Amino acid sequence: MAFGWIDEQARLRRRAGLVRTLRPRPAVSPLLDLASNDYLGLAHHPEVTEGAARAARVWGGGSTGSRLVTGSTELHAELEQELADFCGAEAALVFSSGYAANLAAVTALAPHGSLIVSDAGNHASLIDGCRLARGTTQVVAHADPEAVRKALHTHEGPAITVSDTVFSVDGDAAPLAALAEACREHGAGLVVDDAHGLGVLGDGGRGAPHAAGLAGADDVVVTVTLSKSLGSQGGAVLGPARVIDHLVNAARTFIFDTGLAPAAAGAALSALRLLRRDPERAARARAVAGELYAGLTAAGLEAVRPDAAVVSVRAPSPEDAVRWAAGCRAAGLAVGCFRPPSVPDGISRLRLTARADLTGEQIERAVRLIGETRP
Amino acid sequence: MAFGWIDEQARLRRRAGLVRTLRPRPAVSPLLDLASNDYLGLAHHPEVTEGAARAARVWGGGSTGSRLVTGSTELHAELEQELADFCGAEAALVFSSGYAANLAAVTALAPHGSLIVSDAGNHASLIDGCRLARGTTQVVAHADPEAVRKALHTHEGPAITVSDTVFSVDGDAAPLAALAEACREHGAGLVVDDAHGLGVLGDGGRGAPHAAGLAGADDVVVTVTLSKSLGSQGGAVLGPARVIDHLVNAARTFIFDTGLAPAAAGAALSALRLLRRDPERAARARAVAGELYAGLTAAGLEAVRPDAAVVSVRAPSPEDAVRWAAGCRAAGLAVGCFRPPSVPDGISRLRLTARADLTGEQIERAVRLIGETRP
Ligand SMILES: Cc1ncc(COP(=O)(O)O)c(C=O)c1O
Ligand SMILES: Cc1ncc(COP(=O)(O)O)c(C=O)c1O
Repeated sequence: MAFGWIDEQARLRRRAGLVRTLRPRPAVSPLLDLASNDYLGLAHHPEVTEGAARAARVWGGGSTGSRLVTGSTELHAELEQELADFCGAEAALVFSSGYAANLAAVTALAPHGSLIVSDAGNHASLIDGCRLARGTTQVVAHADPEAVRKALHTHEGPAITVSDTVFSVDGDAAPLAALAEACREHGAGLVVDDAHGLGVLGDGGRGAPHAAGLAGADDVVVTVTLSKSLGSQGGAVLGPARVIDHLVNAARTFIFDTGLAPAAAGAALSALRLLRRDPERAARARAVAGELYAGLTAAGLEAVRPDAAVVSVRAPSPEDAVRWAAGCRAAGLAVGCFRPPSVPDGISRLRLTARADLTGEQIERAVRLIGETRP
Repeated sequence: MAFGWIDEQARLRRRAGLVRTLRPRPAVSPLLDLASNDYLGLAHHPEVTEGAARAARVWGGGSTGSRLVTGSTELHAELEQELADFCGAEAALVFSSGYAANLAAVTALAPHGSLIVSDAGNHASLIDGCRLARGTTQVVAHADPEAVRKALHTHEGPAITVSDTVFSVDGDAAPLAALAEACREHGAGLVVDDAHGLGVLGDGGRGAPHAAGLAGADDVVVTVTLSKSLGSQGGAVLGPARVIDHLVNAARTFIFDTGLAPAAAGAALSALRLLRRDPERAARARAVAGELYAGLTAAGLEAVRPDAAVVSVRAPSPEDAVRWAAGCRAAGLAVGCFRPPSVPDGISRLRLTARADLTGEQIERAVRLIGETRP
């Protein structure tokens, strides 16, 4: 029977305790949220939601076509200009998601015959970009510029190195400056995904590449998402104007995808302007992460020192991680629960996200509940 | 130098007259729009834009996380329920784009060792799904159930056939019933992309699979987009509940992507409800397409008889297509211009879209201007 094989996979998943189910949440959740990627607490900010509402009213419910046909509005151009200015890039191109932006950047910059050097801890969207690209991918050890250097050394012709700036599972930062150096020695490009860096790292949240002195470099391309610190949906690629022109002409997830909905562009633009007005938000998100880490460590839990706003706590097993997260939830705390196959190293963990708007009391409560529900 | 090779590609593109540039449009365009995919004219309908605005205010600017973490809201569940009901499917799953929905359906339903039989005219997102999937892809002749039958015949193990229901470039319909029959003979699944069928074909716009008697079939999976007739952004997969459960557990563009923004879900839901209340909109879009076709043919132009709301007109060359579209634009008419590499067969054409809300006068004007600007 068609699709019969999926029942056997479902059975195996059930047996391994790895079944995932959706749990739709209400508009106002009674839970303390340490699970979302709303790092700056902007998703519900009235200026952001009003930005979405106004854009929908003025520009319509959708963009109505590919960005190359009817889907490019002056609102998209405005967002692209302000994103590029903020991050110090020459140009920017907005996509319907961060996932689509990553697929675009990697596939369009890795033609037939090229080499992609990819960090073993990279996000699924970068990995899928590598798999879709015509170039050959070489996966290298996590956060290891020396390994990148070696991989590039063996190759003639175009090459890029691809890395998250902040790895989504453990929240650790990539050694960007050293990666850029390794790339430059070999004339390779550096493509970095700043999904978890934008709005959190760098001067006023300008992102990890900005903090590493790579903003505006002619051999660095940065992807970002509008769905995390900017509280919206969508993604963007930032880089030299010639690279952006190339994406317009060559990136399939740009050419063959409907442009980002106006409401999402409007929300992201409002969030970006809020952040420019109140640059301290970025530092507050980092400080909250530091406090969470200090509290968890003091409570004897094994957490990874956060380089940005993600705090990862090891769990003994997938089952324990699920039970732990469920215990937190029952106690009024939402935390992320990452386990195979969603983790590159097979290690299950709770994933906590710091939000700039968490109070000291909320941080203490979160630490206490995580300690109390520990398996 | 890093990215040096793209300058040579840019030069070749310029020489071939194939450079693409973005042309951001204002909120209110002076052009008569026959280029967007807003088939039912709903993108600017006040109920749709109000649906977006209200959802942003109630649910926030973004969904704040993966659907498996914090990104599933009751609004998503409501949209999924109503989409499934409308199309006659057992269950539905909403994605951030139609592109992501297609990548999900194809990759998750074509495991290692399986066969994917893919129509030569399929959309880029289905093709990328085939390329990302672990199964082996066999491309078959366009709209040819006999070729599908032959391809399936040679394979043991899981297999799917993948096809657009309405091909995006020429607007011709796939032989769905015959494809389903060929699949059933071999126990294969049928995965069809109803991006250009939903809201246009079938009883009240229930889509091409519904019209072909395939709604609710346990061996058929339908993908749709919310970005065309529903005037919003996003996509969905519709099918048996066990297939949807499988996608929740296995589809990377679901698991590792931020959930659709509330405003987009709200806009699509409002559009769907409008269509249910006013099912004649679907028939009107088809009738407008028929009138456009009749007018163009009477004017001696080579158009493809439309099976849905896309009307394709052949152009002698890519340069002519660009000049023709520019001529239309100068005369106040926006039309799509498709040319290599965005067309599967290398043939350049104008692509016109029928909108349910075009008046007889507008249709006549469009036909006249296209005739007058003909190269
Ligand atoms: C590192 C990283 N890159 C890209 C993405 C995809 O971005 P989006 O959700 O906006 O599609 C995510 C998460 O969703 C991510 O964590
Ligand atoms: C046939 C077809 N499938 C899928 C898509 C992708 O849908 P979306 O633009 O919502 O990502 C499109 C066009 O954009 C399309 O024409």
